[in-house]
Amino acid sequence: MLSFASDYIAGAHPEILKRLVETNLVSQPGYGSDEYCQSAAAKIKEAVGRPDAEVFFLVGGTQTNQTVITTMIDNNEGVIAAETGHVSTHEAGAIEHCGHKVITLPQENGKIKASSISEYVKVYYENESFEHCVFPGMVYISFPTEYGTIYSKKELEDIYSACKENSLPLFIDGARLGYGLESYACDMTLKDIAALCDVFYIGGTKVGALCGEAVVYTHGNAPKRFIGKMKQHGALLAKGRLLGVQFDTLFTDNLYLNISKHAIDMAELIKKVFSERGYSFFIDSPTNQQFIILDNKKMAELRKDVDFSYWEKYDDDHTVVRFATSWSTTEEDIKALEALLDR
Amino acid sequence: MLSFASDYIAGAHPEILKRLVETNLVSQPGYGSDEYCQSAAAKIKEAVGRPDAEVFFLVGGTQTNQTVITTMIDNNEGVIAAETGHVSTHEAGAIEHCGHKVITLPQENGKIKASSISEYVKVYYENESFEHCVFPGMVYISFPTEYGTIYSKKELEDIYSACKENSLPLFIDGARLGYGLESYACDMTLKDIAALCDVFYIGGTKVGALCGEAVVYTHGNAPKRFIGKMKQHGALLAKGRLLGVQFDTLFTDNLYLNISKHAIDMAELIKKVFSERGYSFFIDSPTNQQFIILDNKKMAELRKDVDFSYWEKYDDDHTVVRFATSWSTTEEDIKALEALLDR
Amino acid sequence: MLSFASDYIAGAHPEILKRLVETNLVSQPGYGSDEYCQSAAAKIKEAVGRPDAEVFFLVGGTQTNQTVITTMIDNNEGVIAAETGHVSTHEAGAIEHCGHKVITLPQENGKIKASSISEYVKVYYENESFEHCVFPGMVYISFPTEYGTIYSKKELEDIYSACKENSLPLFIDGARLGYGLESYACDMTLKDIAALCDVFYIGGTKVGALCGEAVVYTHGNAPKRFIGKMKQHGALLAKGRLLGVQFDTLFTDNLYLNISKHAIDMAELIKKVFSERGYSFFIDSPTNQQFIILDNKKMAELRKDVDFSYWEKYDDDHTVVRFATSWSTTEEDIKALEALLDR
Amino acid sequence: MLSFASDYIAGAHPEILKRLVETNLVSQPGYGSDEYCQSAAAKIKEAVGRPDAEVFFLVGGTQTNQTVITTMIDNNEGVIAAETGHVSTHEAGAIEHCGHKVITLPQENGKIKASSISEYVKVYYENESFEHCVFPGMVYISFPTEYGTIYSKKELEDIYSACKENSLPLFIDGARLGYGLESYACDMTLKDIAALCDVFYIGGTKVGALCGEAVVYTHGNAPKRFIGKMKQHGALLAKGRLLGVQFDTLFTDNLYLNISKHAIDMAELIKKVFSERGYSFFIDSPTNQQFIILDNKKMAELRKDVDFSYWEKYDDDHTVVRFATSWSTTEEDIKALEALLDR
Repeated sequence: MLSFASDYIAGAHPEILKRLVETNLVSQPGYGSDEYCQSAAAKIKEAVGRPDAEVFFLVGGTQTNQTVITTMIDNNEGVIAAETGHVSTHEAGAIEHCGHKVITLPQENGKIKASSISEYVKVYYENESFEHCVFPGMVYISFPTEYGTIYSKKELEDIYSACKENSLPLFIDGARLGYGLESYACDMTLKDIAALCDVFYIGGTKVGALCGEAVVYTHGNAPKRFIGKMKQHGALLAKGRLLGVQFDTLFTDNLYLNISKHAIDMAELIKKVFSERGYSFFIDSPTNQQFIILDNKKMAELRKDVDFSYWEKYDDDHTVVRFATSWSTTEEDIKALEALLDR
Repeated sequence: MLSFASDYIAGAHPEILKRLVETNLVSQPGYGSDEYCQSAAAKIKEAVGRPDAEVFFLVGGTQTNQTVITTMIDNNEGVIAAETGHVSTHEAGAIEHCGHKVITLPQENGKIKASSISEYVKVYYENESFEHCVFPGMVYISFPTEYGTIYSKKELEDIYSACKENSLPLFIDGARLGYGLESYACDMTLKDIAALCDVFYIGGTKVGALCGEAVVYTHGNAPKRFIGKMKQHGALLAKGRLLGVQFDTLFTDNLYLNISKHAIDMAELIKKVFSERGYSFFIDSPTNQQFIILDNKKMAELRKDVDFSYWEKYDDDHTVVRFATSWSTTEEDIKALEALLDR
Repeated sequence: MLSFASDYIAGAHPEILKRLVETNLVSQPGYGSDEYCQSAAAKIKEAVGRPDAEVFFLVGGTQTNQTVITTMIDNNEGVIAAETGHVSTHEAGAIEHCGHKVITLPQENGKIKASSISEYVKVYYENESFEHCVFPGMVYISFPTEYGTIYSKKELEDIYSACKENSLPLFIDGARLGYGLESYACDMTLKDIAALCDVFYIGGTKVGALCGEAVVYTHGNAPKRFIGKMKQHGALLAKGRLLGVQFDTLFTDNLYLNISKHAIDMAELIKKVFSERGYSFFIDSPTNQQFIILDNKKMAELRKDVDFSYWEKYDDDHTVVRFATSWSTTEEDIKALEALLDR
Repeated sequence: MLSFASDYIAGAHPEILKRLVETNLVSQPGYGSDEYCQSAAAKIKEAVGRPDAEVFFLVGGTQTNQTVITTMIDNNEGVIAAETGHVSTHEAGAIEHCGHKVITLPQENGKIKASSISEYVKVYYENESFEHCVFPGMVYISFPTEYGTIYSKKELEDIYSACKENSLPLFIDGARLGYGLESYACDMTLKDIAALCDVFYIGGTKVGALCGEAVVYTHGNAPKRFIGKMKQHGALLAKGRLLGVQFDTLFTDNLYLNISKHAIDMAELIKKVFSERGYSFFIDSPTNQQFIILDNKKMAELRKDVDFSYWEKYDDDHTVVRFATSWSTTEEDIKALEALLDR
């Protein structure tokens, strides 16, 4: 069955599987001390242009958000996020489970504003009993956001300035980082991202890996004894090589960005296919997730032959659905979709 | 200095101190097994009209909210509360510290609606990936609310129905319960409250005690081994008699409600004093907290002679302030206030 | 009924009640900012001889241990304690509840050795996979211990040296601090204690107060935003005056130590009473808790007329019981006990 | 370099990689709802002989222990484990991080006794203040243990009886389950294991998979909403297929047990090689981990050519080291080891 249900419907990019097979019998130490993790970390430090960066490999996104956030803030601090942020909504309370509040800011198309951060902190300290409230301890944004949108360089610079002025570390959730960087609307590089935050992660699971997220502390600022903290969160893989080999491959010959570029191109085709047929978009997304408004009858009919995601109710007769692309999406898939729409 | 800063500016009602002195030398076992706690619990069960109720004495409000809520819900459940609820805003993240999200609903004058609860649950389960979201596990409301307002009997019945339909226990934070019950606007008794929720607490600290809150599980539904859970939260007092004697006194000769009635009468006088002089109220509060809009110059002038609380900024020239009454407020205090306003 | 069941069988020392009555109507701000807390803190800083100390008033012992320990150590650190330490055994898992392991060391009569600390840390780092183990983050001892024993000055100096060598802050649980300091076996003063640890608390509940423990950070080393952290733990009393007045009284005219001295004298009498009659002691305790071995028949007989605590089974025919004294124990009580033993 | 450092030095069994490659392009839904997870779960239910079992796939051992244990016990309960249990020692405080104490029992060769469990519970309730102590909430054992030893059927039956008598669920950590079952000393089958506990996991990471542990609730007793709880712990893989394909392969044509049998045979050879040369064993292990006492000089010499694990100091001149085998160990490896020893 044709599927645009998500960017994790298929396994790994073939290059990754190939490398896993090639390296399978080489003896390696565990827990991330293998040579592949070391090589991958070196390549990532190079790619992000931060010689003093520290790189760690974790398994999945929620685990990464939980481990990074809750080891960077103090007991009675919370993390500021968009009310639509993944940590606010779709992580089953993983942040709260480790003792911290997610402080939500209003968003527009999944994005928060630098001014909202500054204003929040200002109002916070105006409150005479602010000590009885959760202290704002850091800021979390996603790039791209949960709605597929991206921050411009100017917007990110402003956010990072607001963070620095208020002594709030900035963390960028890059579960789909590649799709943001390769978007035609993007005016930033991977190095820009690394220069404009304190920590971010390079998402593997949704960008061609079987699993894995590479956390980058951009300036030697990893929490002390971070390996032990990963372990405490169940985030330290015994066969760390599984992550090392994958990221080593993704950061060889620009594979990570090439995969991302392909998915963006496929998304642009999908956008064209729907636009040409008069469909409306819920959000103007420049990345690999496209949010289309379908009338419910059409939706039911399409569902018989193609997988996509329910996003939210639009009105009584319409629904917002999501079509996602990835390294595995082909032009044939899009043509098949076109045919189904025209049927 | 004249003070309306809060309902905890003075010590305890003199009857309570008297009883503490009288009972001081009687040997008693610790940790709530003393005869005063037992007597107080019996009187409370009688007063609330629930023979199968279970009563526990804790020390303060935040501690009580934390202990009650986080021992009643499952790991990945959160508590639904008004976005202005005390647990949402003024408890330094005490709920999150114990692992649970506070799920906020929109409020009006501090109150949430039964329909908001039902709607929240409905939309929650419509989400295809609801399992990735925090489950709604119980509902928290305050009576009176943080804005001094109260629910009508009809409103509370509707909320409790919505809770029962959705299998959500209802918890009422009664830090200022007496002031709600004795409000002229209130159409409920203590027994009504007890019949319309699963657990609530009778606030002592803000209603004449030195400290102490009496938690009432209304129908034999206390979490098993609750004493041990109180201990784990640092909420089990060695000299439990301190709480027992206070609540035993408060529930002798109707002292709890009499104190509350007095504070309400004083609040009505304050309301009259400000109304007659043309001041506006931020909220029409029928309880012991009055929220008045002062122009900033007047506020600065008044502050020299009388204590009250900053509440929030109203506009560039005006501020919302709170005047609170309690058992210790006198008619002379109000007259002095009047004189200051007319100065 | 005659009672030696604990040091919290009676209410407060009469001086304390008197001051509570006298100050009852004075308007004060809440949450520890009242003048009594300020005065008490100043007196305590003076008494402990540490001008740069920071003093906070909490309500009970378990709450204090939980709040102090879990705000001083990092996420994957644990607290080292004797296997008989209060935090290890009798706090219902309060430390673990906040995310931290209690690492237990062997004890003798409730005491741990400096060498055990150093050895533990040494072996810890010899382990090749030490990063997978809980890091030792601080050391907790009780003075007196749970068995009524006390550290000598030399022992405490050695422990504090071992702590400093290993960068482990030292916390002394002084729930019964006065009884340790006034023991005839004690070679330390309050100032010595304050000079030989990073943080300790002066127990009020068990030394004449209704409730309350005064935490002393000895050298300006309180965790930042400690008030907010107390709030988060439900440990910040609205009517903080209740604690302020009590400690202000206890630190006026040496009341705290005088009370303690009295209890020690009463304990020495009890010791004499039992010794003279040939009873054995489970432990040679120089403080206000005496651990006596009773044959079970005698124990049952005595229980009819006098309250004491079960401690542990000694053998099939004998039981260890605890007799405790406090400010409220009188010579008449001891004489009554004597008569019962001779009956 | 020759390596016996652990059972996770190589990648996955080739059959697993083959299946990953074959299934790579098939579109599948995420989060464990893919067809491979379903097929693997069905095969596991068949293999364990429990039609009412519930099977979940998690990523690693510490994560699994944390998620299973802390979702099965109540707030103020702890988990009973051997003092050498993995959860007690090598998980960086993962259990405590989620709020629960690990209650340790004495062990012999890594094993606890049924009688220790019963005795612990008995003494627990004899304590008059047991409510102030952590309640024993469940029992954790490892099979094989951290010392490579295994329980006999009789021992496990007794333990499970003791658990049932005391209403304590029994959880078996089967990180190396296959190596226990295929040990020549084992008198149990996989079905026996499943019949003698409430929940266990079938370790993948150390038995031929790249990662993955299959949790089996043996009688429809999974905590409600377990998927959401996995998510909250960061234990729900987006590409769940990675785990499904691996376990589906491991449970096809008996691969899981065949791999295990091979590793046991290799371990027996290692045992023979060292025995014949007069080396002593620290523990008589019948599974894939062999603990050998080496004199330090020999150890240093061997280390140049072969990898093995430091276990613990034996005496000033000797060290305990661990040699582990797995699916990837070959007879040639053993011969090479033999040659090195005879060099």
